[in-house]
Amino acid sequence: MKPFIFHAQTSDYFHENDGVLTVTLLSERNDWNKVQLRHEPDNEEYLLDMTKVGTQGRLTLWQVSFPVNTDRSVTHYAFKLVDSKGQYWLDAKGVHSRVSSREFHFKFNSQHQPPEWVSEQVFYQIFPERFCNGNPSISVKSGEYRLKENTLDVVVKEWGYSVEGHNGTGAAEFFGGDLAGIHSKLDYLQDLGITALYLNPIFQSPSNHKYDTTDYYNIDSHFGTNDEFAALSQGIHKRDMRVVLDAVFNHTSVEHPWFDKLKVTGSGAYDHPGSAFHDYYFFDPDNPQQYVGWKGISSLPVLNFSNASVRDYIYQSPDSVIKHWLKAPYNVDGWRFDVIHMLGEGEGAYNNAHYVKAFRNSAKAENPEVYILGEHFFEATSWLQGAQEDGSMNYYGFAHPVRALLAKQDIAYEPIDIDMFAFSDWLAEARAKVPWLNQLSQLNQLDSHDTARLLTLLGGDQAKQKLALTLLFTYVGTPCLYYGTEVGLEGGQDPDNRRCFPWGEEESSSWFPFHQALIKLRTERRSLQSGAYLELYCDAETLVFARSLNGEKTLVVLNLSQDEKALSLPVWMLGQEQGELFNLQGKEKSLPIAYGAVDILVPAMQAKIFDVVNC
Amino acid sequence: MKPFIFHAQTSDYFHENDGVLTVTLLSERNDWNKVQLRHEPDNEEYLLDMTKVGTQGRLTLWQVSFPVNTDRSVTHYAFKLVDSKGQYWLDAKGVHSRVSSREFHFKFNSQHQPPEWVSEQVFYQIFPERFCNGNPSISVKSGEYRLKENTLDVVVKEWGYSVEGHNGTGAAEFFGGDLAGIHSKLDYLQDLGITALYLNPIFQSPSNHKYDTTDYYNIDSHFGTNDEFAALSQGIHKRDMRVVLDAVFNHTSVEHPWFDKLKVTGSGAYDHPGSAFHDYYFFDPDNPQQYVGWKGISSLPVLNFSNASVRDYIYQSPDSVIKHWLKAPYNVDGWRFDVIHMLGEGEGAYNNAHYVKAFRNSAKAENPEVYILGEHFFEATSWLQGAQEDGSMNYYGFAHPVRALLAKQDIAYEPIDIDMFAFSDWLAEARAKVPWLNQLSQLNQLDSHDTARLLTLLGGDQAKQKLALTLLFTYVGTPCLYYGTEVGLEGGQDPDNRRCFPWGEEESSSWFPFHQALIKLRTERRSLQSGAYLELYCDAETLVFARSLNGEKTLVVLNLSQDEKALSLPVWMLGQEQGELFNLQGKEKSLPIAYGAVDILVPAMQAKIFDVVNC
Repeated sequence: MKPFIFHAQTSDYFHENDGVLTVTLLSERNDWNKVQLRHEPDNEEYLLDMTKVGTQGRLTLWQVSFPVNTDRSVTHYAFKLVDSKGQYWLDAKGVHSRVSSREFHFKFNSQHQPPEWVSEQVFYQIFPERFCNGNPSISVKSGEYRLKENTLDVVVKEWGYSVEGHNGTGAAEFFGGDLAGIHSKLDYLQDLGITALYLNPIFQSPSNHKYDTTDYYNIDSHFGTNDEFAALSQGIHKRDMRVVLDAVFNHTSVEHPWFDKLKVTGSGAYDHPGSAFHDYYFFDPDNPQQYVGWKGISSLPVLNFSNASVRDYIYQSPDSVIKHWLKAPYNVDGWRFDVIHMLGEGEGAYNNAHYVKAFRNSAKAENPEVYILGEHFFEATSWLQGAQEDGSMNYYGFAHPVRALLAKQDIAYEPIDIDMFAFSDWLAEARAKVPWLNQLSQLNQLDSHDTARLLTLLGGDQAKQKLALTLLFTYVGTPCLYYGTEVGLEGGQDPDNRRCFPWGEEESSSWFPFHQALIKLRTERRSLQSGAYLELYCDAETLVFARSLNGEKTLVVLNLSQDEKALSLPVWMLGQEQGELFNLQGKEKSLPIAYGAVDILVPAMQAKIFDVVNC
Repeated sequence: MKPFIFHAQTSDYFHENDGVLTVTLLSERNDWNKVQLRHEPDNEEYLLDMTKVGTQGRLTLWQVSFPVNTDRSVTHYAFKLVDSKGQYWLDAKGVHSRVSSREFHFKFNSQHQPPEWVSEQVFYQIFPERFCNGNPSISVKSGEYRLKENTLDVVVKEWGYSVEGHNGTGAAEFFGGDLAGIHSKLDYLQDLGITALYLNPIFQSPSNHKYDTTDYYNIDSHFGTNDEFAALSQGIHKRDMRVVLDAVFNHTSVEHPWFDKLKVTGSGAYDHPGSAFHDYYFFDPDNPQQYVGWKGISSLPVLNFSNASVRDYIYQSPDSVIKHWLKAPYNVDGWRFDVIHMLGEGEGAYNNAHYVKAFRNSAKAENPEVYILGEHFFEATSWLQGAQEDGSMNYYGFAHPVRALLAKQDIAYEPIDIDMFAFSDWLAEARAKVPWLNQLSQLNQLDSHDTARLLTLLGGDQAKQKLALTLLFTYVGTPCLYYGTEVGLEGGQDPDNRRCFPWGEEESSSWFPFHQALIKLRTERRSLQSGAYLELYCDAETLVFARSLNGEKTLVVLNLSQDEKALSLPVWMLGQEQGELFNLQGKEKSLPIAYGAVDILVPAMQAKIFDVVNC
């Protein structure tokens, strides 16, 4: 049985002052021969003795101060506690009987911190073509044009009709969503409790998803105008909300004038090896019409960032794309970089870190408070150490494990079987490798425009969906709801996950108030936004964790079993010897805490959220 | 219970041909719905279906080919096996129920491979001052000079007298070991089975340990001459042996003419801010006699590699120190870089990776077969990915866990308590993060000039020492024996671990033939040098592993318990359904294998080594 030892990088246990870190450690036992902090000011281990500074319930507190590393941006540290028989180490993943892998040591980045506002938000992801049609006069008309690379004429369907697969009309199928539609629903979103929007691409592009840009400086004409976007952004900001746009810089459309595969301008790179834009892409010198496409897809030619003109255009010049939309009158608050890990020079991702840093630096130079969000379907650890991204779309550390646990499917829709122990371990591993502030800035989602909707994967199981939503709004990281989830919108794999928002249902859906209440908790309770994460209990079917900050303590209990569960919870780990648990979602009687423990009953397949309070 | 799935990067299961890797996977089960390889040609996951290619006993083999990464030097991969209920992943650490952390994926470095000769060696570390006095006429004489920074007059003691601690004469205490002594013992070392020497520093320096260099181009005059070293090196090479020297480039002595703290030349940096050598070190501009010393030690001023003159001198110019000793007539075979992770610009280790790569490139340009060995007391993962070091002094992945398991002490001499499960996990974690060829090039030691001797830490327990030695000569990595271990030489912490070699005892010591026999096994059996590592069994006190290569299979059984242990070993994991275990150390009857298993009895606190053979 491992002893209870704890540290977190919240203001309760961690301070930086003028390059000096002061850290506090909590331990149930106080009979240690040595309590030490290990750090690496010059890549070598130094052990500093910690001093007893007080108690909290049955917990003893130790403290020490040490300088942040000056030789690199991330300062690593861990704790070593020695008794007469052995030793225990605490790192960001947990307690170990020996020094742990360096990747799990606590990490603090003093130079490249994410903006504080991020973790305070509740995001809402909108796929604009399917959210709301606010201006039918600019909607695509059937046959109006053709996705020429795929020889598909655009098709318009009535709002709410079924979405067809890639064998059907695919990316050429339109329903008419636009910016005016989004603008018209800001009150609705505010009522739901949403504080920030992430919009899938809105720049000029022939497809419905718009990941094939033809003009980075103009809003798609079927979505609206640049002026309308400026007005939308102002409307968003007026409500103290934020907006993040999709940055698709790895590749363009073949119809981008630079490439012009369809010979519209007559001066594009595809047909003119002498074109000024030839080196904007990667053409095979021996076969001038062969070029590098994203994942080998010929309709998405990959941009050549080793070309200074491309760098200038996208991120380096004063009015580069990245900077342009950060400025007035648009003032967007963040960029979500599409397939950012794949971007590089040519095939492969050569020099990727350099470009991600450059994107970051360019954006931060324009607005230090901009949110740099990367899309990664898998582990994003190396992009989240500070100098690259503030946060990632947290598939690896949140969406995948939640889906595996509850829907028993992995991201490739293959069966996967993990119990709560494995789930907890997966979350812990993903968290621990990332500096704390970046953990808070991870964008957690249950699903997105790239995955089947979780509710559908769950076979419509409402109890499981509620457990997932409880995790989404209480776990470490910034929650993001994919549009329509709040009214129980379902949808299978792409493109079925991009169904039209069923306007009208929002008023009667029992889902809506459930989301509203959870979002309200998330927004009102700072402990859920940026509080320390502490696991109090785990068995194969049950997980209990707390989030705590400045005395506010939120307790989350998840029971995945088919049976009611009786638990005695060790709230003494939170320094709480007495007091009570106040149910934050219902009108149940509060539960008394005695001698640091509290007995609770959790019904089968249910989650509960409590406030831990003094009497 | 996890299914048995296996892959190794040995020629049995792994081939590279013209940038294409062909990998083979073994599995006990053959009822998978999918067997796939996961790789990341552009940082994104690609899953390739594998094809059944045969069987080996009850094992089924799958195979697939894929290109090495072109966007970076290390190619990562792992395996995914899916059945109707879930999935298993195999990475270099083991089998998991979900995709594992990226750091544990199999890694192959096609660009920066260690020289093959390394893993074929049995190294022997010599602390020259204490190994053998072959030329008394050049030995230090008492009072001959003074370690001026410490105001210690040199003291000469009779060979074999006790070594005094740092409160005594410390680094000023001399016994008279020299190069002629080493030369005179080459036959002895060859008889023991040693094939390579690692010498602690031998360049001019006032101390007995010589980590405070005063002249990088000359052998210390009390050790011999450059000509004598050339002759020694020739003698070594004539015996088909190799020699690796200690490279102490992080700092110099304060008595180095560049620094000249003691004002001998009158032109050194310490007293002359205008000196040509001033920028060879890091002086405080506001306090010209304050400077950066290694770990704050004033007698070891840190060299300034941001100064081009220092770079030229140490590694960049055609006759730089690193290149000089690699050339005729010295032809040394490798450099062991002292505190290499700490080297940087100023305090801290700023830009460390750049300099380690530069050292490597400079050395490899002179001799592509040179062994680049780094000293790291702790985890060296990031230096072992190819472009920096071939191998490290493997404290983290071998010496520390062996010492923790057997001596119950960590490297700081604190108590540590780990069982065989934790030991196996520690070894596996350390191995898995490093490419296979670098695993083979790790320098494994039980102890060194920087640690107490293991036998002493074990309280002289011969049974435990024999278990440790069995591990040393059978485990993954290149074994290195610290001088005197083969005659049972003991010694506590530095400097007691640097006792004089007890010449005379080698003929009667029962340790000597034990070492000789183990070394012979190691040298004769290629499976022990570079065979795949496969754990067959582990419990809290017992570990059984195999090393296999090209049909040669060596089985190692370690029983740490106080009781005899009866085990039934699953040798079917090695593809072996029938045959027998032949004891490689004694004259026991061979043990029959039936239906893929073999029953064995292992006495308390003993190790056994078997050959797994067909009848």
